Amino acid sequence: MQSVNVVFHIDELDKWSLLLANVRNLVKAVNHESSNIMVLSNAKAVLVFGDRASLNYADSIQELVANGVEFVVCQNSLNGAGIAIDLLPEFVTVEPVGVLTLIEKQTQGFAYIKP
Amino acid sequence: MQSVNVVFHIDELDKWSLLLANVRNLVKAVNHESSNIMVLSNAKAVLVFGDRASLNYADSIQELVANGVEFVVCQNSLNGAGIAIDLLPEFVTVEPVGVLTLIEKQTQGFAYIKP
Amino acid sequence: MQSVNVVFHIDELDKWSLLLANVRNLVKAVNHESSNIMVLSNAKAVLVFGDRASLNYADSIQELVANGVEFVVCQNSLNGAGIAIDLLPEFVTVEPVGVLTLIEKQTQGFAYIKP
Repeated sequence: MQSVNVVFHIDELDKWSLLLANVRNLVKAVNHESSNIMVLSNAKAVLVFGDRASLNYADSIQELVANGVEFVVCQNSLNGAGIAIDLLPEFVTVEPVGVLTLIEKQTQGFAYIKP
Repeated sequence: MQSVNVVFHIDELDKWSLLLANVRNLVKAVNHESSNIMVLSNAKAVLVFGDRASLNYADSIQELVANGVEFVVCQNSLNGAGIAIDLLPEFVTVEPVGVLTLIEKQTQGFAYIKP
Repeated sequence: MQSVNVVFHIDELDKWSLLLANVRNLVKAVNHESSNIMVLSNAKAVLVFGDRASLNYADSIQELVANGVEFVVCQNSLNGAGIAIDLLPEFVTVEPVGVLTLIEKQTQGFAYIKP
């Protein structure tokens, strides 16, 4: 199976179901151990991480994390949404400016997909 | 006229009109014989191909096919929508995992546009 | 601070607030004098430029222009919206086919972001 480098971008809360289905299908089709699959969320999409205790899509996300998918959240967006970083699930990585991460990854050769 | 390599991504049914206008304008502006212009549809967008007899946008799509535009559909999405492959228009190509095709094309140097 | 090359794509009128917030956050985080940050608008998004006298988001846009951000508008979309080019704000650049500009920039190594 092939390896891929890709960053998925999500900035709308109601796109999580579609995005997670996309990523699940991809994970099944590639060598996920040698792939780099990142989900970068900013703007309203970060609200999904607002309450760790009642994380929506918790099972789907945990399963993807177990398969090496990286979840990255924009700190500017967290600040705008009033979400404290220490309330985030442990598997989440915070980057100061989400769009800068999107640029850096593409510069490194990652494909970009916006579901 | 110049040549281009580009994959357009559509995953919402109500974006077909916008997407087809984008592609029509592009086809007029480039050497389409030496270009590679692909339209990759997944998720709900594949419903446009659900009934060959009453294909929406049939004229627009046929004209683009005649100009070398390639229409590719995600098989996972067809399965999810309950659309049988043998009911698809003949000009459609089916790929097992649409997002993997989006990654592969970008890795090959195709630009990505999500209308 | 680092330099970036990126084109932001907007084709919906109601995405301007989100897009401008994205670009503002980026401008603060990079060396904007040595960066190339472009905002390419087509389809309905060009309506924001339809009335120079009452330009929405005028302050946000002017501030970004002062920081070197380039605003490019698709002429096909202007024609479709019935907006005369000589009514556009002076800082706007017009390109005949917006999607072709999106492709050319990516071919030149620009990242693509669709808020």
